Amino acid sequence: MAPPSLHDSPDHPGSASPSDVSGGTLGIWFVGARGSLATTATIGLHALAARLTDETGCVTAHPDLDARGLAAWSDIVVGGHDVDTTPLAKQAERLVAGGVVPGVLVHQVGADLEATEARLRSGVRTGDSPDQRADVERLAADVREFAAAVDRVVVIDVSSTEPPHDAGEDAATWAALEAAWDAGRAPLSPSSTYACAALLAGAPYVAFTPSPGIDVPALRELADERGLPYAGSDGKTGETLVKSALAPMFATRALAVRSWTSINLLGGGDGSTLSDPAARSSKTGTKRSGLESILGHEVPGPMHIDYVEDLGDWKTAWDHVRFDGFLGTRMTMQFTWEGCDSALAAPLVLDLARLTARAVAAGERGPLGALGFFFKSPIGSAEHRLATQWDDLVAWSHACAERVSS
Amino acid sequence: MAPPSLHDSPDHPGSASPSDVSGGTLGIWFVGARGSLATTATIGLHALAARLTDETGCVTAHPDLDARGLAAWSDIVVGGHDVDTTPLAKQAERLVAGGVVPGVLVHQVGADLEATEARLRSGVRTGDSPDQRADVERLAADVREFAAAVDRVVVIDVSSTEPPHDAGEDAATWAALEAAWDAGRAPLSPSSTYACAALLAGAPYVAFTPSPGIDVPALRELADERGLPYAGSDGKTGETLVKSALAPMFATRALAVRSWTSINLLGGGDGSTLSDPAARSSKTGTKRSGLESILGHEVPGPMHIDYVEDLGDWKTAWDHVRFDGFLGTRMTMQFTWEGCDSALAAPLVLDLARLTARAVAAGERGPLGALGFFFKSPIGSAEHRLATQWDDLVAWSHACAERVSS
Amino acid sequence: MAPPSLHDSPDHPGSASPSDVSGGTLGIWFVGARGSLATTATIGLHALAARLTDETGCVTAHPDLDARGLAAWSDIVVGGHDVDTTPLAKQAERLVAGGVVPGVLVHQVGADLEATEARLRSGVRTGDSPDQRADVERLAADVREFAAAVDRVVVIDVSSTEPPHDAGEDAATWAALEAAWDAGRAPLSPSSTYACAALLAGAPYVAFTPSPGIDVPALRELADERGLPYAGSDGKTGETLVKSALAPMFATRALAVRSWTSINLLGGGDGSTLSDPAARSSKTGTKRSGLESILGHEVPGPMHIDYVEDLGDWKTAWDHVRFDGFLGTRMTMQFTWEGCDSALAAPLVLDLARLTARAVAAGERGPLGALGFFFKSPIGSAEHRLATQWDDLVAWSHACAERVSS
Amino acid sequence: MAPPSLHDSPDHPGSASPSDVSGGTLGIWFVGARGSLATTATIGLHALAARLTDETGCVTAHPDLDARGLAAWSDIVVGGHDVDTTPLAKQAERLVAGGVVPGVLVHQVGADLEATEARLRSGVRTGDSPDQRADVERLAADVREFAAAVDRVVVIDVSSTEPPHDAGEDAATWAALEAAWDAGRAPLSPSSTYACAALLAGAPYVAFTPSPGIDVPALRELADERGLPYAGSDGKTGETLVKSALAPMFATRALAVRSWTSINLLGGGDGSTLSDPAARSSKTGTKRSGLESILGHEVPGPMHIDYVEDLGDWKTAWDHVRFDGFLGTRMTMQFTWEGCDSALAAPLVLDLARLTARAVAAGERGPLGALGFFFKSPIGSAEHRLATQWDDLVAWSHACAERVSS
Repeated sequence: MAPPSLHDSPDHPGSASPSDVSGGTLGIWFVGARGSLATTATIGLHALAARLTDETGCVTAHPDLDARGLAAWSDIVVGGHDVDTTPLAKQAERLVAGGVVPGVLVHQVGADLEATEARLRSGVRTGDSPDQRADVERLAADVREFAAAVDRVVVIDVSSTEPPHDAGEDAATWAALEAAWDAGRAPLSPSSTYACAALLAGAPYVAFTPSPGIDVPALRELADERGLPYAGSDGKTGETLVKSALAPMFATRALAVRSWTSINLLGGGDGSTLSDPAARSSKTGTKRSGLESILGHEVPGPMHIDYVEDLGDWKTAWDHVRFDGFLGTRMTMQFTWEGCDSALAAPLVLDLARLTARAVAAGERGPLGALGFFFKSPIGSAEHRLATQWDDLVAWSHACAERVSS
Repeated sequence: MAPPSLHDSPDHPGSASPSDVSGGTLGIWFVGARGSLATTATIGLHALAARLTDETGCVTAHPDLDARGLAAWSDIVVGGHDVDTTPLAKQAERLVAGGVVPGVLVHQVGADLEATEARLRSGVRTGDSPDQRADVERLAADVREFAAAVDRVVVIDVSSTEPPHDAGEDAATWAALEAAWDAGRAPLSPSSTYACAALLAGAPYVAFTPSPGIDVPALRELADERGLPYAGSDGKTGETLVKSALAPMFATRALAVRSWTSINLLGGGDGSTLSDPAARSSKTGTKRSGLESILGHEVPGPMHIDYVEDLGDWKTAWDHVRFDGFLGTRMTMQFTWEGCDSALAAPLVLDLARLTARAVAAGERGPLGALGFFFKSPIGSAEHRLATQWDDLVAWSHACAERVSS
Repeated sequence: MAPPSLHDSPDHPGSASPSDVSGGTLGIWFVGARGSLATTATIGLHALAARLTDETGCVTAHPDLDARGLAAWSDIVVGGHDVDTTPLAKQAERLVAGGVVPGVLVHQVGADLEATEARLRSGVRTGDSPDQRADVERLAADVREFAAAVDRVVVIDVSSTEPPHDAGEDAATWAALEAAWDAGRAPLSPSSTYACAALLAGAPYVAFTPSPGIDVPALRELADERGLPYAGSDGKTGETLVKSALAPMFATRALAVRSWTSINLLGGGDGSTLSDPAARSSKTGTKRSGLESILGHEVPGPMHIDYVEDLGDWKTAWDHVRFDGFLGTRMTMQFTWEGCDSALAAPLVLDLARLTARAVAAGERGPLGALGFFFKSPIGSAEHRLATQWDDLVAWSHACAERVSS
Repeated sequence: MAPPSLHDSPDHPGSASPSDVSGGTLGIWFVGARGSLATTATIGLHALAARLTDETGCVTAHPDLDARGLAAWSDIVVGGHDVDTTPLAKQAERLVAGGVVPGVLVHQVGADLEATEARLRSGVRTGDSPDQRADVERLAADVREFAAAVDRVVVIDVSSTEPPHDAGEDAATWAALEAAWDAGRAPLSPSSTYACAALLAGAPYVAFTPSPGIDVPALRELADERGLPYAGSDGKTGETLVKSALAPMFATRALAVRSWTSINLLGGGDGSTLSDPAARSSKTGTKRSGLESILGHEVPGPMHIDYVEDLGDWKTAWDHVRFDGFLGTRMTMQFTWEGCDSALAAPLVLDLARLTARAVAAGERGPLGALGFFFKSPIGSAEHRLATQWDDLVAWSHACAERVSS
């Protein structure tokens, strides 16, 4: 059987057929709605709904996952916040020029993009306002307005990576946070204000970036109190994905990894953000932890994330693994990965929205560790091995599907 | 925690401590006992027994496997057949020159190597004798003599790859095989005569090569009749190992693999054998099947096995994977693997001997599908995904351990 | 100084300014005028003439070469033969889809493409006609008709690679060829009929493929008799280009290359042609010779050319070099080349046309060894080292320029 | 013809036969005489003299160079300075363990190594003494003592890389340097004190490291005044060597290099020194300059030198080149280089000693730009293209040979 081609009917094997997916209408609210990732996801969603593309890259279309109760592509709408004001159509043009999305597709979904454009609202920047509580409430009001038109909303942060941020005692509890606001302080970083707004608006929150987001005690407390699930963090789309598939091979074969070097060259917005050492440190942190967790020991070797403007939305990673075998024999493995981050990540955020919405329906709350398959630094799980994460996801998908369809 | 070094005490975490392993004495009978692989395994076994090396590369030392009832390294002896007559000590020198084993180690285990040398017997070649039954009986007698001195024997074929061989109707049943022998015909290829001899001597048989071996109806019937387990075939040590770790990543992420190119450069005896197109076809067959099974569709792309004399016991593989992501975005992954086949395979054959001997004790019979983790073309299992094979192996190791220790 | 971008003015440094190039009008007659290479070259030429693109990839724009007397881009027209009848516009669409040429450019030069379309004539196939002389005369008449409208014509063979062909005694001299034709035989392969027609029409001939073409004694005799120059063969555009830059490094550093493995994956028309082993043997021949000539000894190692349909007009090559250094130390170099053959070759055929036309004006005749820089198997030169070929080309460019401008 | 093997007679083609080389006795004085590089060079020299190895890696054995007047291997002795006191025999053991030199060779040249050991003297460290002039004079006395026993001496700095050092006004002239010393100041970095000592002892000086060395106005003045030649700096042995062979290919083919990423992983002493950012900056400086000089424009892209302890004396470099071809087509080249720096550099320092000694005999003085072939940052030449450097070296070798033999 040949692999499904772009021009196959969307009913190819593996696709969730419309009868399977009946989860009602779903609204995805993107934080960073005008970025490369959100724009690619939005174009792709419209194309899926109109059956102009197939489901390549969409994990929820995999036949091993249980699709019952997932929202149909045509039942999903997009809205979101962004501090940027460049129109989506303009962003789409840029993606076409960079070879990320086909120009003809953008043309075909033009009207849908315009409709989405009308649902975007302006975001908040650090220090925008002297009153962080007011910011949060304004953001929450935007989400609530959007939510009124759909059965469920999921908020997904796909905005640029923030530097590590310590909210300190002011965010140790919800009460402390309220007190800090009362005192005119603004302890939350922007990503956390969006997470807070999501929860206040009653929406589950997914962190696709390594920014602090919901990873703040006060906000976890709020999520628990509201009975909302959340997931994250930092989408596993490229070099770390490969690592999490390969490292268990060395571990189970009892091969001794002596050094693992990781070089990441990336252009585009993400590369530019990460050329700031502070933001980069958020990223290298999440990239490193998984490897040592899988191998069970420290692994020396440099890890670099470098901005190479000319690469645009594309990323090239080179990894070099030095390992010893039986009797100390020295061996080496190298790999080069040349991928388009937006195209790799876009279907995953659609998957996460569908799965998280169904999780709410299934009564899930708190950290969704079973979504670790999607993340470099899984909230609610210590598992980093890709295949095991897949097994966990499959099992959980059946459990949720069972609950929503019974 | 740092990875275990060659000079660590053999009691490092992960090592089966002597109290765990109490499976009695074990004899490994190698078919191809003077080849690079068997010689490396023999040197390594003696080094492990004398605690001169650690257990890097030994899967049975992994803490997730249940080691109860496995033979201790110091309780294992080696014997075997070979058509070659070069002394083991000479082969060991060649391996030292090629950088496969450290010279000092060979020196240290010299006396043990000599003892093993005394247990080697001459093998059979195609057409050696007009009487194949007599050949088989002579081989079986050698195994029986060896078996007398140990609690259990496992026969492992690590000899050079044979071309595909169709034994035809003459080997369709045990009765047909006997009739063919009576009529003076010799339907079995050499690897199958060894397999037959193993079974007649009451020993389980493991095929580490893609040669026909036990994969002949008459011999499977014999194994069933004798209640013996068997396993194979074709050790998964390098490029195919990596493939079986990576391909599931593409599958579970719903990425569409459009072509997968595999280039294998190898020198040494194996490369030389495989420069014969007929023998090579045995190998490319087992290497290909797994990939398409994991991905669920045909995957175009050349596969080459080339002999590059200068590489000696080392192998360099280059794989190039072209895949499409969301919206048809074209992406690429490449890897280069530089390994020493003998060093990768040697601990695995020791593992297989330990596990198969315990399986006999645990009452296992027929094809040991749970050993698929070790093989390119698993007998008794259709599973090729490395991580899933690992899960199966772990579960089975606990089941066997439970049975032998209760 | 930044590298010249696509949107720079065509007057960037390095570009031949209009005043330098005053070689009159030039007609390029492509054999294989509808193929990927000729179509890319034609589109590119029109784009250069209209100053819609810069001269990236055009060797004749290099400031070290002497541009005096070269035809200006806007003074060049294209015609040609092809056995295929697909319109150029259709071929251009295919190239746009494959990412070889930008769609907007094809749109902008649409009128020029149509004008070129009108100058294309149908080619000949093996055994098309019982009368090879008539074929040749018909082809020559086409070239003559085209030549009437320009100052000079250069015929360039960019058609698919033919298998090796031995024209035998029938083509040993021009008289023998005429006698064979008189006797109703057809000793020439198609590429040689085009070469013969070019010469009869008074045009110099350039072989960009490894097909026999002018490499036949009778035709060389004809070229000498007519006083025409010729050049070839087999454009050096990718992996062999890199080899010819790298191999001298090993030679001058006295490093001992033990094996050199070359893997070429290519799709598109060229790959498909080369999946025929006979045609492939023409290609591997020209690819091999240079390396051993540079290193001065035989170099073991496989060379593969594999068709991977999915790669389209793109080519991926992987080379693996094993070399020894001082005291026998073993070292390795690998490279991966990912290029678009049509885009690499197209500017070179334009360069060859300009340089060959000027060579005629400068009174050159016979094999143009100084054009070896462009070829895998240089006619008229035994030099394969890229840098030395460059020095030769630079010197010759000054000599020719001097002669035509004095 | 097969490449010369390690066990060939040393009279293989390309080897300078004894009759060619009659330059008298030569003393090589190493600064850093106990380091990996000097130790490898010393072992290798003794092996060459005893005809225990061939001349692989020795540029002066190349048949295109003129060997007349070069010192024969058996006429060369080694001495030197080092701040380290580890015996050469111990260093040799370490190199054997790391796979850099064969153990058997070290054994065979043991007596020669001991003789060399007796000629080593202790070096100087920064701030060793309050009196830098006294240090210099002591070092010079050591060189003079060594020089007494041979016809000529060449001093070669192969010690660890120093950080950039600005000697300032105190070293602007020889008079200023003397005044500074009179005033109790110590303006020279250690590498410059060795360079100064060499010149005072009447020996030419070669900088194989990027340390300041002779690159100080006062010392250049001294060299001029004494009529001594000098050469450097920073041996071109690995990734930069490959770059200087490849970059001209992009330039002459008019391909537009958009980014060039260079990753260098190295262990051993050099890697450890370079893990100090200050020392590393000396190195990345010399590595970068050549590329931009060859391509004629700035080339973005990260350059990293990373210490990976586990690699020992080995180095792995990965380079990634993004370039555009005709019509803006995006293409990529990558290479991986796995070499042993000591084995690559050792024959070059022997070559440099022979060539520099002959240059003195031929009356050369001042910077030897024709030795640029050996260096990342050639003193006395702006040429970085490897092939052109080779042509320059060949021509100069003939000129010098002519002068010394007439």
